[in-house]
Amino acid sequence: MLNETHRTDLTSWVESAQLPGTDFPIQNLPFGVFQRESGGPAAVGVAIGDHIADLAGLWREGLLDDLATELTAEQMGAESLIDAANQPTLNRLMGLDPSLLTKLRRHLSIAFRADTAVAGRNAGVARRVLVPMSTATMRVPAEIGDYTDFYASVHHATNVGSMFRPDNPLLPNYKHVPIGYHGRASSIVPSGTAIHRPTGQTKAPDAAMPSVGPSKMLDYECELGAFIGRGNLMGSPVPLKEADRHLFGLALVNDWSARDIQAWEYQPLGPFLAKNFATTVSPWVVTLEALAPFRRQPEPHADGDPALLPYLDDPADRQTGAFDITLEVLLRTQQMRDGGLEAVKLSRASTTALYWTLGQMLAHHTMNGCNLRPGDLIASGTVSGPTPDARGCLLELTWRGRDPITLPTGETRRFLEPGDEVTIRGRATRDGFAALGFGLCTGVVG
Amino acid sequence: MLNETHRTDLTSWVESAQLPGTDFPIQNLPFGVFQRESGGPAAVGVAIGDHIADLAGLWREGLLDDLATELTAEQMGAESLIDAANQPTLNRLMGLDPSLLTKLRRHLSIAFRADTAVAGRNAGVARRVLVPMSTATMRVPAEIGDYTDFYASVHHATNVGSMFRPDNPLLPNYKHVPIGYHGRASSIVPSGTAIHRPTGQTKAPDAAMPSVGPSKMLDYECELGAFIGRGNLMGSPVPLKEADRHLFGLALVNDWSARDIQAWEYQPLGPFLAKNFATTVSPWVVTLEALAPFRRQPEPHADGDPALLPYLDDPADRQTGAFDITLEVLLRTQQMRDGGLEAVKLSRASTTALYWTLGQMLAHHTMNGCNLRPGDLIASGTVSGPTPDARGCLLELTWRGRDPITLPTGETRRFLEPGDEVTIRGRATRDGFAALGFGLCTGVVG
Repeated sequence: MLNETHRTDLTSWVESAQLPGTDFPIQNLPFGVFQRESGGPAAVGVAIGDHIADLAGLWREGLLDDLATELTAEQMGAESLIDAANQPTLNRLMGLDPSLLTKLRRHLSIAFRADTAVAGRNAGVARRVLVPMSTATMRVPAEIGDYTDFYASVHHATNVGSMFRPDNPLLPNYKHVPIGYHGRASSIVPSGTAIHRPTGQTKAPDAAMPSVGPSKMLDYECELGAFIGRGNLMGSPVPLKEADRHLFGLALVNDWSARDIQAWEYQPLGPFLAKNFATTVSPWVVTLEALAPFRRQPEPHADGDPALLPYLDDPADRQTGAFDITLEVLLRTQQMRDGGLEAVKLSRASTTALYWTLGQMLAHHTMNGCNLRPGDLIASGTVSGPTPDARGCLLELTWRGRDPITLPTGETRRFLEPGDEVTIRGRATRDGFAALGFGLCTGVVG
Repeated sequence: MLNETHRTDLTSWVESAQLPGTDFPIQNLPFGVFQRESGGPAAVGVAIGDHIADLAGLWREGLLDDLATELTAEQMGAESLIDAANQPTLNRLMGLDPSLLTKLRRHLSIAFRADTAVAGRNAGVARRVLVPMSTATMRVPAEIGDYTDFYASVHHATNVGSMFRPDNPLLPNYKHVPIGYHGRASSIVPSGTAIHRPTGQTKAPDAAMPSVGPSKMLDYECELGAFIGRGNLMGSPVPLKEADRHLFGLALVNDWSARDIQAWEYQPLGPFLAKNFATTVSPWVVTLEALAPFRRQPEPHADGDPALLPYLDDPADRQTGAFDITLEVLLRTQQMRDGGLEAVKLSRASTTALYWTLGQMLAHHTMNGCNLRPGDLIASGTVSGPTPDARGCLLELTWRGRDPITLPTGETRRFLEPGDEVTIRGRATRDGFAALGFGLCTGVVG
């Protein structure tokens, strides 16, 4: 549903919000949790240009007074919004009714607009609560109760399947079941956190016994993440047509993976130590409302693919269940940094190529009555497109190391080497609309 | 390490602590979280006989004054213990240094002993903070950040493997890797919570397409659970010889499972909706220190089993890594309740029959640097022994429904039917020591 906040001609008195290529124009207004350079408690922030607005500060300085008045008139009260702004995580905000969040977004947009009668006053007042991004540290945006990782890219599943199970690449359940599994919440870290190389058991096919040592096949996985908004009660599935109302917003996820550990451990209960040593999330959560212009039809399933089961089929989801978000993966090695070279792009893929929509993942996740809580994270699994340059992990790009990548320095990569910096970035684009970004999801591996 | 608190001849002025068969003699003193009948906040409690002592109340009423004096003399201060007692979960208590918890246990034991000079005074004062169990509601004892389920019974793995993969029952990794996977934290419920029957996708081998409906193969899994005490930092593995110092205590776990959903969904990423609809935990966490008399040698691996990798091998673990805890599963159907019949025992198994010790599970879990947090739950997986009457789930007991069980009412069971009540109970026993119990882990299925 498009509204005033999506208008392409809106500009902000925060000048950097108009810079070409910014991730955070006034049409975005994503939420995150930051800490000031000077220390102090974690605070809820809104990204605008290259600044962060302290949400509790905006309330304190009166920039959301009109919202309070509007809510009072509607006999709603602003207390829950103010309470949610005064938390060290986004969980409370995420758990609010979507209609309240819509009102908040509208008034945030008004507060930052350059073309209102009070824009000058707002700019003066708001400077007191604006923090330059370069001086802030971003945190994991929510206390993540549970983290679920799906396997929604059929291109990824087919590629990986053909390496691990050459005779049986895509399992019989794949096109019926949005396959997912539980990941680890404790080891989710914010962008910029150094990633240690995991030690684990591995076994070469021709070895008699497994051995223990640092992973030699450390990989990244480029994924789209979704934070749960309102939860559901245990025993109460969320139907697909209501799924959007339980999704707060999207972020980028790198589900670091140790392929050699994974190959030896994953049967019969799935990946465990190959994944739970670290998962990186981008700092900003772009709301579903901000992404409304970028909803589109998922890429149609192939002829001969099975019909959707009724609980995974909904006319609106078929029309607008996908998000046109392009994900890119960049690699910069220690040698490249030493030589002043820029990162190289390893891949580029659109999330419209996923076999399952986020709505279908959520409907599936809850069909058995499993309860989701505000701030829970679900992720898509590696986003790979149909072409070789759209493969979202090194396992696929180098075909399990068979085809190494050559970098501008002359270095080659089968998997990640110490000092390698991996960055995921995402952009939502559509003709006639301001492009939105997510900030970076980055980490250097040891 | 045995000490004064384990003495068999100790008795308490709480008379029910001396009743034969009590789970909670003065040698036990497990921790839990309870709510009074009158409502009010959740509080940390200690079980003694058929009563719960409010831990914060014990401090308030002065029954732990000697502990405070002792800590002051050692320049430690009692603040962290008092703070941990005033929480709605056990997480803070679990995160304390084990030496502090040892001191707390010693003084709790003294406070409840019948043979001290001040026993009469203690009894008088403590009555103000004792709550009859029959009037209290027990909660999940900790806020569980992550829940990990292992697969540590080789008997269970072999039985199940031979049903799901007749040609390949025990996978090649089983005797090298303590196989585990992440379960769902949000759907962990306290004993007594009604369990709804999950709906899911299933596919009969001869069906062309999967179908959706309530599970027809609803099962329980009888497991031993362990709550993490002190956590470890990301990137810092816990060596096996230190594992005990990171385990706070043990409880009973029923990891309800829908076998028909599991069979269709579990490849390649493991069980998901077949498990995450509900997991029941018993209310009391029996500390590792209370269980010290019941440590014993794990059952030796079979001749021809592979040698342990060094990180899974430790002399102390080989000697005392197991716990002699007997787990029993009881079933009572609606018809049995209507007819006033007692529950029937379905199985009985000792946790010494596990292939991996809890210490080995913890060392494996952290070998890659995965961080555990106080209050995290790890569970053993279904505890089955080598004999048919020691099988810890219906899948094994009825051999996937092939051999139904006949009940005293004439009813038969392949899997659970609506109204069935499943109860797990556990007892730690050893000649010359007071037996300890865990309370019940129970649930009625819909």
